Amino acid sequence: MRIIIDERGKKYLIKNEEFHSDFGFIKKEDIEKSKEGDVLKTHMGREFKVLKPNINDYIDLMERKCSIILPKDIGVVTAYTALGSGQRVVEAGTGSGATALYFGNIVGKNGEVTSYEIREDFAQIAEKNIAGFGLENVQVKFQDVKDGIQERDVDLVFLDLPKPWDVVESAAQSLKIGGYLAAYNPYIEQVLTLHKVLKKFGFSDLKSLECILREIEVKNKGTRPKTRMVGHTGYLTFARIL
Amino acid sequence: MRIIIDERGKKYLIKNEEFHSDFGFIKKEDIEKSKEGDVLKTHMGREFKVLKPNINDYIDLMERKCSIILPKDIGVVTAYTALGSGQRVVEAGTGSGATALYFGNIVGKNGEVTSYEIREDFAQIAEKNIAGFGLENVQVKFQDVKDGIQERDVDLVFLDLPKPWDVVESAAQSLKIGGYLAAYNPYIEQVLTLHKVLKKFGFSDLKSLECILREIEVKNKGTRPKTRMVGHTGYLTFARIL
Amino acid sequence: MRIIIDERGKKYLIKNEEFHSDFGFIKKEDIEKSKEGDVLKTHMGREFKVLKPNINDYIDLMERKCSIILPKDIGVVTAYTALGSGQRVVEAGTGSGATALYFGNIVGKNGEVTSYEIREDFAQIAEKNIAGFGLENVQVKFQDVKDGIQERDVDLVFLDLPKPWDVVESAAQSLKIGGYLAAYNPYIEQVLTLHKVLKKFGFSDLKSLECILREIEVKNKGTRPKTRMVGHTGYLTFARIL
Amino acid sequence: MRIIIDERGKKYLIKNEEFHSDFGFIKKEDIEKSKEGDVLKTHMGREFKVLKPNINDYIDLMERKCSIILPKDIGVVTAYTALGSGQRVVEAGTGSGATALYFGNIVGKNGEVTSYEIREDFAQIAEKNIAGFGLENVQVKFQDVKDGIQERDVDLVFLDLPKPWDVVESAAQSLKIGGYLAAYNPYIEQVLTLHKVLKKFGFSDLKSLECILREIEVKNKGTRPKTRMVGHTGYLTFARIL
Repeated sequence: MRIIIDERGKKYLIKNEEFHSDFGFIKKEDIEKSKEGDVLKTHMGREFKVLKPNINDYIDLMERKCSIILPKDIGVVTAYTALGSGQRVVEAGTGSGATALYFGNIVGKNGEVTSYEIREDFAQIAEKNIAGFGLENVQVKFQDVKDGIQERDVDLVFLDLPKPWDVVESAAQSLKIGGYLAAYNPYIEQVLTLHKVLKKFGFSDLKSLECILREIEVKNKGTRPKTRMVGHTGYLTFARIL
Repeated sequence: MRIIIDERGKKYLIKNEEFHSDFGFIKKEDIEKSKEGDVLKTHMGREFKVLKPNINDYIDLMERKCSIILPKDIGVVTAYTALGSGQRVVEAGTGSGATALYFGNIVGKNGEVTSYEIREDFAQIAEKNIAGFGLENVQVKFQDVKDGIQERDVDLVFLDLPKPWDVVESAAQSLKIGGYLAAYNPYIEQVLTLHKVLKKFGFSDLKSLECILREIEVKNKGTRPKTRMVGHTGYLTFARIL
Repeated sequence: MRIIIDERGKKYLIKNEEFHSDFGFIKKEDIEKSKEGDVLKTHMGREFKVLKPNINDYIDLMERKCSIILPKDIGVVTAYTALGSGQRVVEAGTGSGATALYFGNIVGKNGEVTSYEIREDFAQIAEKNIAGFGLENVQVKFQDVKDGIQERDVDLVFLDLPKPWDVVESAAQSLKIGGYLAAYNPYIEQVLTLHKVLKKFGFSDLKSLECILREIEVKNKGTRPKTRMVGHTGYLTFARIL
Repeated sequence: MRIIIDERGKKYLIKNEEFHSDFGFIKKEDIEKSKEGDVLKTHMGREFKVLKPNINDYIDLMERKCSIILPKDIGVVTAYTALGSGQRVVEAGTGSGATALYFGNIVGKNGEVTSYEIREDFAQIAEKNIAGFGLENVQVKFQDVKDGIQERDVDLVFLDLPKPWDVVESAAQSLKIGGYLAAYNPYIEQVLTLHKVLKKFGFSDLKSLECILREIEVKNKGTRPKTRMVGHTGYLTFARIL
């Protein structure tokens, strides 16, 4: 798998295939033989840089069937739950697999990510996306997480569900001592219900927050925050088994 | 090393020592024998939960000689640079070692973090903090990073320096293709100079942003963002060698 | 009434009295005779500039018994309700009178502000504050606004009450066609209840928002948003009788 | 002049003319005879509410040749400069006249607004807009404000110009003691230059800030800040002649 970048900076994900664009075509074997940093030319003489995609490049270009959680929010989840190499993560639901890929990249070969998804079409896309990147430590379970989390001694249970409270009791049994539950929810009403249920099942260190990202435009005519921005994605709620 | 938590939720970091507080004392050997989840009693009968500290617990309680970068910003750096298990990171300066510890936790045993620090007192504290947590993949170099980065094929160069532009040329040589430079700077003037120098040395995909974190108070009397918040920490600037 | 400003920029409100500070004293008659822009000297030779206070100077320095609504929020209320000279405003509760003063300054001699306050101590302070500034178009009613608003043909009903919904029906009768109800509430739960009741009593154009103010530090060492900021004051809700 | 509102809440500004829409037409004389609160029917039987427009209704529907300053920013200017009935305001440039209308509404019959505009097409539109609303206290000067502000004893000089520093010296002479200069600027570089020049010409109490407005969506499925928001309009800078 390669990414090739055209002269305008646009990136294309290439998997064992010929490349066609308005800048011309590149043969499959030329792409396969290329190494990172090489420059490939189309039959029209236009240049493309070759890159091995990292997890962000890949997620940007892979197939999606639903909206994905933004890097800002995944980053804050990572930092607030001390996620690291070798850890065990359970997530629900999988969606297109972006978060699972992201977590899989961090926990690495000695860690593992299990992701529950109730919709078969999402589970299939996610499995294809995960296999496409070659992560072997991420498993998609086409299964309703409300029927219970089988994994034990887990470091992080991450919930991106309309009713995360349905899984709180099960998460409490699944998490190791010191482990974290983290939930992503668009609506404040979800946060309120979740807090009640988290307290009921003995979670500690409850915290809810929003991460607001402001991009800064640095241009010749001047510097300023961008005119349009994402105003809200979701509230992040954290709790811990102590 | 253990963390013990009192009945109010307050955490204490314990390293081979007796514990004393206004709730009474606990003997060194009792702490050493304890397992995660155990409950220890002081001579006054007060209970303390035992926990193995994760990287966040440890950073909160370790010795500091200067202010540290907040988790929100470290999280966004992690997410925007696709940081993961097995990667190689260079950082400057080390400060108290919090960022180095955080990166070390993510890159794991198969990765490595090298952190440059020009001040001997900071380098010593950081080394003590890193050794204290037992991370063997993090190395502190008591060395001026402006004299050059020795490491090659690096995934991320992270700069928390007053003049990060002094290191841009050296970072360009140190980074592998596709690798990231990330910089943390409080002042907008720093961002402007950095952008100019990044462009001069051929970096791509320049992006600057701010991460604003709003904590939400969920209480019986009602729900609201907290009255006081951190208004600004630093701008984050990202660039890539392509 | 005068404001005098010391060499550090600190302001003092003076009402028919001698002035004493660590910079020395100034005689009552010297202050009374002074005109805006004059410089007065203390017996120690320190200089004080004389100023006629505007409504903001006065509110900053007047006596307060409770926290007041910040200018950012009052400004947004003014702008969103098209408040102007000659209009009629009803407010509840009065508190220390800051908002009443602010509205009184805008509606002017041809307009009027009636402010309901249930606590006698607040009503007294507010009356004193309003008389002190010399606004004759602002009236404080020591009366429970839940017993009904007597005023009719009102342009704006502004509610800073724990349960603003108790007054919605009464406000609907009080407002002229096209008039606005505006409410200031710290908690999101208050906003939700208020919306339900506003709809029930036929209000249109419902809108809720937050105004977040970021101060920018412009210093020699660099420019940046301030480190600490007010994270939240209150939600502003607007509705209209159409 | 009337506003008529259709069954969906959409507003139309009507000036001595027949009304046509996909809901049918209403005769000119029916609109002219109508009073606020009346319901007019089209020949198709669809109902329209009649309203006398306030300044916000009018600005929303009047002709514009350029982008206008948002109410959030005008509101903060009003609040931070203690603007009120009877005051004298100078502004530059006029643009479509929205700010001039807004200030004119606040200062009322006993106050006055003078607005400088260097572009003839903008000055003409603004004059038409101001006459259309019937404000007699607002005057547009088709004149380069850099040639000097003629007005004296002014309470507020408001600058929405690319280079507001060109007018600082002139503003200092125009303002009364205690008066304010306020400037609206999209770029941070403009703020820095303005601060330098304001200090040079003896202004006090310099302050720069940003007003960020977050709209809250209150819907049946839940409550949340809106997904998309305005990320930045302009920095507001305030200074005072003391």
